[in-house]
Amino acid sequence: MSSIHRAETFPANTPAASQIFTTVLSHGPLTRLEVARRAGLSPAAVTKAVRPLIEAGYLVEDVDETARPALGRPANPVRVDGGRALFIGLKVTGDAVIGVLTDLCCRIRVARHAPLPDREPGSVLASVAELTGTLLAEAGDLGVPVLGLGIAVSGDVERGAGVVRYSPFLEWRDVPLAELAAATTGLPVTVDNDVRALTVAEQWFGAGVGLSDFAVVTVGAGIGCGLVVHGRVVAGAHGVAGEIGHVAVDPAGPPCHCGNRGCVEAIAGDAAIVRRIRESTGVEVADTAEAAALAHQGNAGAREAYARAGEAIGRGIATVANLLGPERVIISGEGLAAYDLFAEQIRDAFAAAAFGTAAQCDVQTRPLPFEEWARGAAATAIQSFIRADDQRQYR
Amino acid sequence: MSSIHRAETFPANTPAASQIFTTVLSHGPLTRLEVARRAGLSPAAVTKAVRPLIEAGYLVEDVDETARPALGRPANPVRVDGGRALFIGLKVTGDAVIGVLTDLCCRIRVARHAPLPDREPGSVLASVAELTGTLLAEAGDLGVPVLGLGIAVSGDVERGAGVVRYSPFLEWRDVPLAELAAATTGLPVTVDNDVRALTVAEQWFGAGVGLSDFAVVTVGAGIGCGLVVHGRVVAGAHGVAGEIGHVAVDPAGPPCHCGNRGCVEAIAGDAAIVRRIRESTGVEVADTAEAAALAHQGNAGAREAYARAGEAIGRGIATVANLLGPERVIISGEGLAAYDLFAEQIRDAFAAAAFGTAAQCDVQTRPLPFEEWARGAAATAIQSFIRADDQRQYR
Repeated sequence: MSSIHRAETFPANTPAASQIFTTVLSHGPLTRLEVARRAGLSPAAVTKAVRPLIEAGYLVEDVDETARPALGRPANPVRVDGGRALFIGLKVTGDAVIGVLTDLCCRIRVARHAPLPDREPGSVLASVAELTGTLLAEAGDLGVPVLGLGIAVSGDVERGAGVVRYSPFLEWRDVPLAELAAATTGLPVTVDNDVRALTVAEQWFGAGVGLSDFAVVTVGAGIGCGLVVHGRVVAGAHGVAGEIGHVAVDPAGPPCHCGNRGCVEAIAGDAAIVRRIRESTGVEVADTAEAAALAHQGNAGAREAYARAGEAIGRGIATVANLLGPERVIISGEGLAAYDLFAEQIRDAFAAAAFGTAAQCDVQTRPLPFEEWARGAAATAIQSFIRADDQRQYR
Repeated sequence: MSSIHRAETFPANTPAASQIFTTVLSHGPLTRLEVARRAGLSPAAVTKAVRPLIEAGYLVEDVDETARPALGRPANPVRVDGGRALFIGLKVTGDAVIGVLTDLCCRIRVARHAPLPDREPGSVLASVAELTGTLLAEAGDLGVPVLGLGIAVSGDVERGAGVVRYSPFLEWRDVPLAELAAATTGLPVTVDNDVRALTVAEQWFGAGVGLSDFAVVTVGAGIGCGLVVHGRVVAGAHGVAGEIGHVAVDPAGPPCHCGNRGCVEAIAGDAAIVRRIRESTGVEVADTAEAAALAHQGNAGAREAYARAGEAIGRGIATVANLLGPERVIISGEGLAAYDLFAEQIRDAFAAAAFGTAAQCDVQTRPLPFEEWARGAAATAIQSFIRADDQRQYR
């Protein structure tokens, strides 16, 4: 594996400096005064924190001589120099690892994927190493250092420890993925839950920019949820958070792999929809593509399965709204491919179950391909890099 | 009404200064270094913020000459001078207004209550004025100024606007209670949802001290929930948050006053338990006291109603844990009087529905009489006073 990456630390070792950089990253170019206002800090603190970031090349100032006051604080806007550093983000799916090479602004420069022969940790690690090698070679061609690797995995992930505690989808328990991947790739590694990673990308660069409270709900093989409350992604005191898929909406509902009954995922996950259609119609649909095709042909049983799924998702979203009152809920995930089959039921069930003004929450859909999830993983690596004091990455 | 209160502003007009004061309030006495560590601020910032607070008498330094270094930062611990100011907290219940006069440390000095002839806004306002007058007179005897009034009301309350948007219990819609009470009493008024107010008191002085993520779940006439995420009480972008009572746990469950079916409150609220027992046993129990007595006598139908209620509450708490992963859930409320009748079902339903490590959440009970809810209202008034920049109170 080529190894042009090198140990480099971010010259901002206070929470305020990280916050200033993140503010410029999401909202820049901004003048120092605008940064101060948005970050709730004093202009003096911003000016002081910006200086070493400019010196190290992470921020650049767009010099406009006409805007420079004769005395005092520079009035030129500052922005992040995306080309200063590169990051790798990987999303582990059931049959492949999707990888992206992004710049410091989390813009995708290269996207690649590597097949997964099976879901054993060793196999996934081999694909991670292969894909990382490919992307490092691409970075070498660009002549820019790669400063971190983010890996997004579904399930209960303890980011601080870098451990996948439990991933039902991968059938993993207590896999120290960050440590293993750091040893294999030589890069600082951040491991996070895939939906939380996507949520970080939405918060910094997507439909969550400027919102202090929002949720990302993903529909597909699993039903996931990333929550931002008071401007920060919720991680949970014990590693579990955002498990909308395991909110039980019907005690008489179908059994769930978690051992409970009537979970949103047990009604609205891909496998649940396929199973329901097989049972009610007798048609042996192989996957969601066939399931959706049958529903689109007007098959009543297939349509009912999607309607039930939509109702469960809508009730789950209403539960999030009733408990947290987010400004916006962003629905995404590969399940959006069949969105027309349950959009109405999601809306109706949400409206019926939302309490009072919680119904004012802006529920919107946003298709995000797997590359965007990988980009989310890169965003977590950038986050770890600029908040190195959090010690949330393995080296 | 005697009027010894006077306009006074808190000499800490930055978020950092408010945070420093709150840290000393919850954890003091603390040295400046300890405050800096806990608040994540620089010792210099703490030293600078503490000075005017000491000068104005809100903080005091316990002088110990042996601890004073010859040079540098004073090593003496600082603490809040509780006797420096008084606050009034009121909790509106169905048949009375419960009031407390507290000091700046939210210690109850006097507790009084005023009966409510009915739940009309005018009647409640008259009782609020009467009770405030009584407590102001008590404060006059103590010779200490009253700097704020907090009122806690159940339902959807927009604290920033001082408006009770919707209180099903009081049958109020859009009542500008803060403005009305400020005009009547002459005090700066903070109005908040009662469970959120109780949660502030638990965060600062109760079972939530030192926790960044916890929930308070109250059982009784309503089923409520206060959530603290990332160290702050969740208020909801549109005013609604913590509505665990309207988390729907059974689509085939009984209708709820909110228009939905199978809400936790429609199964586990006082009225729901009484109704269920009447229907299943034919015994016309008048209230929860009679309902609990019947269950304690071993009546199977009554016991089943409590068991169902416990199951619904346990599922609601598991939903909170699955979405937010709090460190602790504190169960309180007048419904705890019958806790032995459903404690087991709450525990079992929680354990069954909690996903993965979310089950590690510490679920505990804590009886808090109505005076503690009124104390919560006083805590919101103290909060508004020390965070006057939030403009969350009416003057």
